Amino acid sequence: MIDSLHPPVPPAPAIDYHDPVTLAAIDWFAALRNRLCAAFEGQEDLYDSPQPAGRFEFKPWLRTEEDGSAGGGGVIAIMRGRVFAKVGVNISTVYGRFSPEFAAQIPGAESDPRFFAAGISLVAHPLSPKVPIAHFNTRLVRTSRSWFGGGGDLTPIFALADDTADFHNAFKSACDSHNPDYYPKFKKWCDDYFYIKHRQEARGVGGIFFDYLNNGDESRDLEFVKSVGEAFLQIYPEIIARHRDQDWTAEDVKKQTLKRSRYVEFNLLYDRGTAFGLKTGGNVEAILMSLPPMAGWE
Amino acid sequence: MIDSLHPPVPPAPAIDYHDPVTLAAIDWFAALRNRLCAAFEGQEDLYDSPQPAGRFEFKPWLRTEEDGSAGGGGVIAIMRGRVFAKVGVNISTVYGRFSPEFAAQIPGAESDPRFFAAGISLVAHPLSPKVPIAHFNTRLVRTSRSWFGGGGDLTPIFALADDTADFHNAFKSACDSHNPDYYPKFKKWCDDYFYIKHRQEARGVGGIFFDYLNNGDESRDLEFVKSVGEAFLQIYPEIIARHRDQDWTAEDVKKQTLKRSRYVEFNLLYDRGTAFGLKTGGNVEAILMSLPPMAGWE
Repeated sequence: MIDSLHPPVPPAPAIDYHDPVTLAAIDWFAALRNRLCAAFEGQEDLYDSPQPAGRFEFKPWLRTEEDGSAGGGGVIAIMRGRVFAKVGVNISTVYGRFSPEFAAQIPGAESDPRFFAAGISLVAHPLSPKVPIAHFNTRLVRTSRSWFGGGGDLTPIFALADDTADFHNAFKSACDSHNPDYYPKFKKWCDDYFYIKHRQEARGVGGIFFDYLNNGDESRDLEFVKSVGEAFLQIYPEIIARHRDQDWTAEDVKKQTLKRSRYVEFNLLYDRGTAFGLKTGGNVEAILMSLPPMAGWE
Repeated sequence: MIDSLHPPVPPAPAIDYHDPVTLAAIDWFAALRNRLCAAFEGQEDLYDSPQPAGRFEFKPWLRTEEDGSAGGGGVIAIMRGRVFAKVGVNISTVYGRFSPEFAAQIPGAESDPRFFAAGISLVAHPLSPKVPIAHFNTRLVRTSRSWFGGGGDLTPIFALADDTADFHNAFKSACDSHNPDYYPKFKKWCDDYFYIKHRQEARGVGGIFFDYLNNGDESRDLEFVKSVGEAFLQIYPEIIARHRDQDWTAEDVKKQTLKRSRYVEFNLLYDRGTAFGLKTGGNVEAILMSLPPMAGWE
């Protein structure tokens, strides 16, 4: 049902990524993608509806550098179903050289613009206003420095204390098993990051966000990143299942439409990943996959 | 029917704008707003529909500087009707000090961050996919330098050669009556400006765009700005009238929804006015009034 397409990984002329951690990270992102897609297709199967259950479509893409040389690529997995209005799970492995203006803003790229980045990125826009929107991503970035980054956050239309607590606790357990300092730090970072300044409102109920993580042992950092992925894979489908079969009203849809418009504002005005993707010539469909099927401004 | 609310104009502590051109510009923006609103309400009246004809609502707002001092304000005029899903016509008169980062990017504000700006800004999102979306704005900006800027552009879902030609010709006549160099220059500027880089597509079929206009005689520049306003006021309602009563299909609405999503991307990712407004603490509702009632990403 789910194939195991990897992003293309031709040899990088710039930065060697044939080290065990990079290869393990690339494998992990692809394996996690498969499990997430299977879990979401499972939610489609469990929903009682006359519509057919949704299935993911896979679209590989290649990235070229401005000089025409290979720059990696990725695979978009996208599903429009009866539980998910639109859910995308992207994996990518990209490399090349940052433009001078952009290099100046990236740690370790100031004097050497070469970069390598691999990751998984997911945004789920459920059809039902009762089911929260969710985002998750983790990535490995290498310039003259190397680090992992990522996180996950939940955006319910109708926030419920139990969902919020369980979502936070899943990430707390993942963090605590690696370092007791992680959770409070990464939770706050998430609240600070997913804040819509001009609206003076949070995008959702938070989660965790981390970046520039490098503790000197990349294998252990990758283990942490795996724990974060496992946590999201465990808790989000569970939250979906709680609300999947609930009824909703036209009034609920209006609130969802408005909440989605705030999601669009955040992603286009503030999200670093969106800017990173568009400025490094990434795949536009993959980058803007986070945008909802329908959003409305009052 | 239409009142003549002006934006509040208390004395500016920073830049004196009680000169005749500034006062004439402020009056013109308010008078043009009234005529545009009347023309749009007229289109609502002419449409044959069981829904009631729309009417504009007026919402004045005040702007304060970070230190709490007065920073001007504006009036939002917004209508949701049976021809217009959403149309906003804003006038504003704002002044204060730019933040240091922003001042560095604005001509004449590099060493003195004080600014004054007055203008009118309009975005119309018709209900029917057969009626083109339109944008128009003109403004007077004063830092240690002074200039007028503005323009108008048309975004049809289904571009028709006659509409496009007539829209362009209206602005061409306005330009040619002032300076034969204006039209070719401002048309190209519009094409360059309203370009959605990451999509490699134009926002619409163009129009004119101009900025930093100062020919040493501000009264004459204001006369040009008035001609641009008259041109838009003449041609856009005419184009609406051509398509107002046409039928449309669900397939047409899908195309409109997608076109609107591109409009959102342009405004949040590239539009200078949006960035200017959000970065100078403008009124969020007024700034984001350009966003459509409903947009969809595939």
